[in-house]
Amino acid sequence: MTIEFSVSTHGAGLYEITRSVQNWLANEQTKDGLLTVFVRHTSASLLIQENADPDVQTDLHAFFRKLVPHANHPKMTYLKHRYEGPDDMPAHIKAAMMPVSLAIPVLNGQMVLGQWQGIYLFEHRDAPHQRNIALNLTS
Amino acid sequence: MTIEFSVSTHGAGLYEITRSVQNWLANEQTKDGLLTVFVRHTSASLLIQENADPDVQTDLHAFFRKLVPHANHPKMTYLKHRYEGPDDMPAHIKAAMMPVSLAIPVLNGQMVLGQWQGIYLFEHRDAPHQRNIALNLTS
Amino acid sequence: MTIEFSVSTHGAGLYEITRSVQNWLANEQTKDGLLTVFVRHTSASLLIQENADPDVQTDLHAFFRKLVPHANHPKMTYLKHRYEGPDDMPAHIKAAMMPVSLAIPVLNGQMVLGQWQGIYLFEHRDAPHQRNIALNLTS
Repeated sequence: MTIEFSVSTHGAGLYEITRSVQNWLANEQTKDGLLTVFVRHTSASLLIQENADPDVQTDLHAFFRKLVPHANHPKMTYLKHRYEGPDDMPAHIKAAMMPVSLAIPVLNGQMVLGQWQGIYLFEHRDAPHQRNIALNLTS
Repeated sequence: MTIEFSVSTHGAGLYEITRSVQNWLANEQTKDGLLTVFVRHTSASLLIQENADPDVQTDLHAFFRKLVPHANHPKMTYLKHRYEGPDDMPAHIKAAMMPVSLAIPVLNGQMVLGQWQGIYLFEHRDAPHQRNIALNLTS
Repeated sequence: MTIEFSVSTHGAGLYEITRSVQNWLANEQTKDGLLTVFVRHTSASLLIQENADPDVQTDLHAFFRKLVPHANHPKMTYLKHRYEGPDDMPAHIKAAMMPVSLAIPVLNGQMVLGQWQGIYLFEHRDAPHQRNIALNLTS
């Protein structure tokens, strides 16, 4: 069973999608299986991260922004792919370093997420985007 | 089929879990399928890495310790999430850069691991922890 | 259903394998399921990346080459695992930062790849290699 949904983003950073995934799973009435989340873009990622303190999301964004600076930064002069602005190629690089898909076992009808684990879309582009995410449940 | 087991860690570094996964798989008597390993924490990762020379594990730990220094390092003053000490937020960052789940095809009853591939839990926290890992087998 | 195929590489960089995966999937005649790609090595990765502008591949290679320099670089003197030359341990590090497996939902007989998403083997070693890749389809 595969479906698709979309998330509107307004700038780089993390957007929690746990509830959307849970709601779909609840309707499927599958007790045991494997849930896969897949993002259909090369400039956004999926993460499972702490959902308690919002500072974790701020810090994650800040770290990767420093590790992979925008293309107009002096350290990034070697980048060739610049069609869509200084956040273009760095977005692809971040998309290579973080997951495009997540595989989450389902037990007793629920994802086996730990107590502090939430599912996030990590938007790497600065401008607003509509991001398509596919969900698959295999049992 | 989904089960869970736990690993006791005593400091940051890699802990091999290949044997535990193989033993469970052997009991399942599934010839062909997909095995998923999932760690239920946001400050530890799963890796498939070389299992021949232990220096590989030492070097991996050293590299990520330098790439993501503890929060008391001068380069990391911008970090806000510091509740649980200087290794707290760097652990979340490393957990974003390395897998939370691994999907491994099963053929003739065995994972298709290459000759030098072992499965590891990568603990990112300094203090001892009990880490819960879920295994799913879908055929 | 699990099969294996191999890719010949001639130096570090990205090698597109989308067509090989699509061709195999087309033969399977499965409408809905989950396709898993798994690389059976610890010095190569799998990526889903933009397949429009080849500069993206050049830039990805350049970024990771700088982030994880060869072992003969002054910044990498701490590395211990050096059996197979200066590109040996950096290849393992890159293999830890990028996926060893990709999970891609299949809908109406096709992978749900986005418009610009291609599947790549990312070779991290400098010398030519034969790389084995396993494909699993679960429905």
